[in-house]
Amino acid sequence: MTSFDIKDAGVLLAKELEKKRFGEAPENLYEPLRYILSLGGKRLRPALTLLGCYVFDEDYKKAMEPAIGVEVFHNFTLMHDDIMDEAPLRRGHTTVHEKWNANIGILSGDVMFVKAYEHIMKVEDSILRSAMELFNKCAQEVCEGQQFDMDFEERDEVGEEEYINMIRLKTAVLVGFALRLGALIGGATDEQSAVIEEFGVNVGLGFQLNDDILDVYADQAKFGKQVGGDIISNKKTLMLIQALKQAEGKDAEELQYWLHKTDFDKAEKVKAVTAIYDRLGIKQMATDRANQYFDKGFSALDRLDLTEDKKQLLKEFGVYLQNRDH
Amino acid sequence: MTSFDIKDAGVLLAKELEKKRFGEAPENLYEPLRYILSLGGKRLRPALTLLGCYVFDEDYKKAMEPAIGVEVFHNFTLMHDDIMDEAPLRRGHTTVHEKWNANIGILSGDVMFVKAYEHIMKVEDSILRSAMELFNKCAQEVCEGQQFDMDFEERDEVGEEEYINMIRLKTAVLVGFALRLGALIGGATDEQSAVIEEFGVNVGLGFQLNDDILDVYADQAKFGKQVGGDIISNKKTLMLIQALKQAEGKDAEELQYWLHKTDFDKAEKVKAVTAIYDRLGIKQMATDRANQYFDKGFSALDRLDLTEDKKQLLKEFGVYLQNRDH
Repeated sequence: MTSFDIKDAGVLLAKELEKKRFGEAPENLYEPLRYILSLGGKRLRPALTLLGCYVFDEDYKKAMEPAIGVEVFHNFTLMHDDIMDEAPLRRGHTTVHEKWNANIGILSGDVMFVKAYEHIMKVEDSILRSAMELFNKCAQEVCEGQQFDMDFEERDEVGEEEYINMIRLKTAVLVGFALRLGALIGGATDEQSAVIEEFGVNVGLGFQLNDDILDVYADQAKFGKQVGGDIISNKKTLMLIQALKQAEGKDAEELQYWLHKTDFDKAEKVKAVTAIYDRLGIKQMATDRANQYFDKGFSALDRLDLTEDKKQLLKEFGVYLQNRDH
Repeated sequence: MTSFDIKDAGVLLAKELEKKRFGEAPENLYEPLRYILSLGGKRLRPALTLLGCYVFDEDYKKAMEPAIGVEVFHNFTLMHDDIMDEAPLRRGHTTVHEKWNANIGILSGDVMFVKAYEHIMKVEDSILRSAMELFNKCAQEVCEGQQFDMDFEERDEVGEEEYINMIRLKTAVLVGFALRLGALIGGATDEQSAVIEEFGVNVGLGFQLNDDILDVYADQAKFGKQVGGDIISNKKTLMLIQALKQAEGKDAEELQYWLHKTDFDKAEKVKAVTAIYDRLGIKQMATDRANQYFDKGFSALDRLDLTEDKKQLLKEFGVYLQNRDH
């Protein structure tokens, strides 16, 4: 038995990805595509497709092309999101719309979407329709999540359940899809693949909630983004929603002060809001909530017709996401 | 035998399209989608899918959902193109990015692309992969065409063949795909469907060249866009490329004068450049070239294993496109 090493799989995938040209002319269409894919990233989602396949069929290389499609899709969403967010940097490098322009970012993203379909389609005929239907659903939900995210920026109040639903759509469903696609390629039944998707969606929710925590509490030396970015932009994360609900007296006043202050020193605001979070125990509350989703995901594993060592691999991956500190 | 009436098919399609919601929440994602589809248009491309089906199998209603997918795809490209071109109007109405904003236009367009796949996928399993592969190829080429179009705006010189290749990608391949998809649904062999695609691509080229001519010579009362728009923006159409090649002496000087003048009266420029085109016989040249493509398309019909009345229907549609005056 060859044991599945997620790092080896990731290296193999990165190699395969590097070989791809995706298209030749016009250069302004394909160069941005290759550029964003060259910026690296953890390649978590395609690794999950390989892992999802491996646990049902150890010959996980047959999931390589669809896994590449998953990564191309993810990067397409990043390219368009960066335009919408006017983000100057992605993984420490200039974003596509800054390096070229927004029009090129829109269109290069569009062609990435096509290439994602093209690669995800590289599955056996017997599962082609399922794979496509699941991908359509996933892609539609990711768009819905991004729109909710943008809508929430314009609103003063966002409910806890609304926020969870938004991150489910924007982030978690793709984690679930990546795993389920792999499982289908590995020969899982539709029912079994749905269970692994459930695992993925819950782990994906925990992953995003952890990401929100890291956004406030990560060690800046290790963290790829600016620590405190969500606080600076008043992003209505579960942490802020909870803080708004729980803060009383002076804390409530101070929180409102920082939320409505338009001209401020960023570091000062981050420090002040983090101190409020600390006094309210927001980090622990958010960690508990994230762990609830991880646990819910882990408990889905019991319903998988897999040997314990295979379930263990899935669990280890979840635990890795649960414990990451950057 | 029920005779195929393209208008009836169009009415039926419009009705089906009107019933579709495509999605519910968030409203900012789906309302722009329904809005752009409600603006009408000639619905030529989906009608071609129905016609392509009909000539091989009179029960053309089975091509209805994929035909809707073709129209959704076309409108997705319009939504994104309008952002890139900063167009204020589409079919006489405010464009999506003006009515909402560019971010909503990007994302609503993205979800339209998903819905296009979803609808085009509604074909028998036996042709699912072919339909998807053809659609991927078509969608990729449409992106390439749009990027070439944008690239050409930045260039001083564009060759005749480059221009033809650009409109082939941007416009003609979708006409070909729309027909071929219908033919496949109607049970055509892969070879026969390739012939009908060839008919479509050539007719599509003729269609776009005619569109360029109408942009200069249409009756403003009938024409949906501003007559002379291409002249105003120095669009390097086949007509301008030819005029630049043929103009000598005073005509050449005057053409350069108008191309480089940045502050001008629009009507005056349109009148002056049109007069140069008239002196050089550009309209006739462009019409001849368009007719060459129409003829090439019509001659492909000889290779179709269809009864003469079915071939006649395809030809009639081509002749309708050839003779339109708005």
